[in-house]
Parts: sequence; C-alpha cells; structure tokens
Amino acid sequence: MTARTAGTGRSRGRPTGGTDARAKILASARTAFADRGYDGATIRAIAGAAGVDPALVHHYFGSKERLFVEVVQFPVAPADFLPDVLAEGPGQLGERIARTFLALGEDPSTRDALIAMVRSAVTSPASAAMLREFISRGPLSKIAATLDGPDARLRVELAMAQVVGVVLSRYVLRLEPLASADQEEVLAYLAPTLQRYLTP
Amino acid sequence: MTARTAGTGRSRGRPTGGTDARAKILASARTAFADRGYDGATIRAIAGAAGVDPALVHHYFGSKERLFVEVVQFPVAPADFLPDVLAEGPGQLGERIARTFLALGEDPSTRDALIAMVRSAVTSPASAAMLREFISRGPLSKIAATLDGPDARLRVELAMAQVVGVVLSRYVLRLEPLASADQEEVLAYLAPTLQRYLTP
Repeated sequence: MTARTAGTGRSRGRPTGGTDARAKILASARTAFADRGYDGATIRAIAGAAGVDPALVHHYFGSKERLFVEVVQFPVAPADFLPDVLAEGPGQLGERIARTFLALGEDPSTRDALIAMVRSAVTSPASAAMLREFISRGPLSKIAATLDGPDARLRVELAMAQVVGVVLSRYVLRLEPLASADQEEVLAYLAPTLQRYLTP
Repeated sequence: MTARTAGTGRSRGRPTGGTDARAKILASARTAFADRGYDGATIRAIAGAAGVDPALVHHYFGSKERLFVEVVQFPVAPADFLPDVLAEGPGQLGERIARTFLALGEDPSTRDALIAMVRSAVTSPASAAMLREFISRGPLSKIAATLDGPDARLRVELAMAQVVGVVLSRYVLRLEPLASADQEEVLAYLAPTLQRYLTP
C-alpha cells in the first residue's frame, strides 16, 4: 500500500525497498533490454544492475515476460498518446503519429525503450508474439476503427511499418543523412506518407 | 582454384572438403544468424552444425564478420538485383524495389537471410555498422544517383525504411492481416508509396 512515487526523479528520504526498488529494477530492465535484447537480458543481470536480489524482481514482476511488458508499456503506453493522436479525427492522423514517434525517438530515455521494443521483437519469437498481441489488440485496432474505406487495418499496419522502418533506419542503423536530418524535415516526408495510407 | 559449384542444391559425389564444406558452413551460418542474431551465433556452433572443425571456418572466412558479410551478401547481393531494378529508369523503380523485396520475403531460403540481416543489424552495433557501410556505399548510392530533385539520398532511405518496416511487420512480427495478405495486394500499396519518395 505504498504510494507510487517512483519515476518522479525526486528523492525524499529514499526508502531502500518498495517503489524505489521497483523503479530501479524497471530502469535497469529498460537498459538491459535495450542493450541485449529480450533473450540476452537476464533477471540476474537486471537485479545486479539495480542492486537488488533477483527474488525481488520475481516478487514485483513475476517473470521476465511481465517485466518486459511493463518496460515496453511505459514510454509508449497507448493510453499516453492514443487519445491525443485520435482526438481530432483522421484528417491529421499521419502527422500526429509521425510526431509522436519522432518525439519518442529524439528523447534518449524513450528512444532506448523504443529500440528495446524493436530489438526484442526481432530477436525473440516469444517477445514478437507479446508485442504483436499487445499492439494488435490496442493501438492498431483503435486507429483502424476510426478509418473509412477498405483494408483499414492493413493500411494502419503499412503506416506503422513505415514508422518502424524509420525508427530502425534513423536510430538503430543510423543511416545518413536520415539519422542527422532535422526532425521537421523527416516529418515533412513521413506525415504525408502515413496520411495517404490512412485516408487514401 | 576449385570451381564454385556450391549452392546448386545438387549432390553428385559430394566431396567432404572444398566447396562442399564451404557451402555447408555458409548454410549453417545463415541459419545461425537468422535464429540467434550476430552476437548469438558462434563460429563453434556454426562449425558444429556444418559438421566441420571451427578452424575450417576461419580458414575459409577469416572471421565471423567476414562470414556474416558473405551470408548477407548472397541473397540480396546488389549485383543480383540492382541492374534489373535500375534498368528502365526511375519511372517503375518503386514497383521494382517492392517486387524484389517481397520476392525475397516469400522464398523461405532468402527470407531467412533477409530476416538475419535485419536481426543482426538490430542486435549488434558492429553488425549495424557493417550493414550501414555495405548498403550506404552500394545500393543506396546507386539508386540515389539515378534520381532528380532535392534530398535524393534521404528519399531513398525513407523508401528503404518502408521496405524494411514491411519486412519486419510481415515476416518477423507477422502482424495480421499484413502477414497473410496476398503479395500483389501488398505491392499495390507499397509500390506507389516508394515511387512517391523516389519521383515526388
């Protein structure tokens, strides 16, 4: 029944357990998944980097899978961006989706989580299945439900494929000039591409 | 000075060394990189699966890096598809690139190599650097050189980002309905998207 003050970046007294330990485990897990992928990151190493016993990781999260879901849900939790993205209807959807993901990519903390998500999906079939389930039920369905015309769900997936490809090319592969291009310049190409899929 | 008969899929007498061993190592490496990523695949395991001594892998390929380049070069070697893709000028470039990569993705043997390429780039910075260098000097430059207008190289990278995103979403993440969609249906959306980047 401790208050959830973790993640505020403020320390007032810092208990050594409770939400503080939980936040440390999450931060350590985020780094481990980003650096080593889903299969490469171990509970033992995550616990070690967080300075806690591995049993505490199991206590808080139950399993590596649950910990991963917690990690990938945080920076791109649908509840954090979908309402804004969908608020003004499909007309500006392409630009809003592009802005959301470029913003996540520019901020080093969310960029790590974004890369970890792609990396884990690519390296682990179990992780790919988790992510597939996660985005299929949530964001993809919700965006597709707002669209008219045939193949709405397929068009949303092609738009998201473009977003994932840009994340990969700009932040992971770091292809130049894409990696160093100004965010607004990338947006000027990306937003209309997404929009054409969404409202052809 | 042995003839390169490896990879024909035919066995006539099968010598236990020479090009046959080399082909076995390559096939084993392709599977290992596809299954485990660049960092996860070891020379020892690749040699073991090929039924040869690890020293023979070093003899033929020198290093894991060289072996990887050999593996990723084979199914999508620029020399194998760029002349055809570029043959008729930029007007049909989008469709030709889309067809090339969807064909690679539909064939299980080249699909493995394609996925291994993406997986290795995502899991290993060294591998990402190799792939970046490989595609930057080769295909990206050669395609960009055929285009008019500003930002030609950036536009090629955004088009390739769309292709990579579709490969990832269709063959790795296996998002439905994209994963099961007919190749021609995907092509009908993908080709015009690439074309608008290449000849806006």
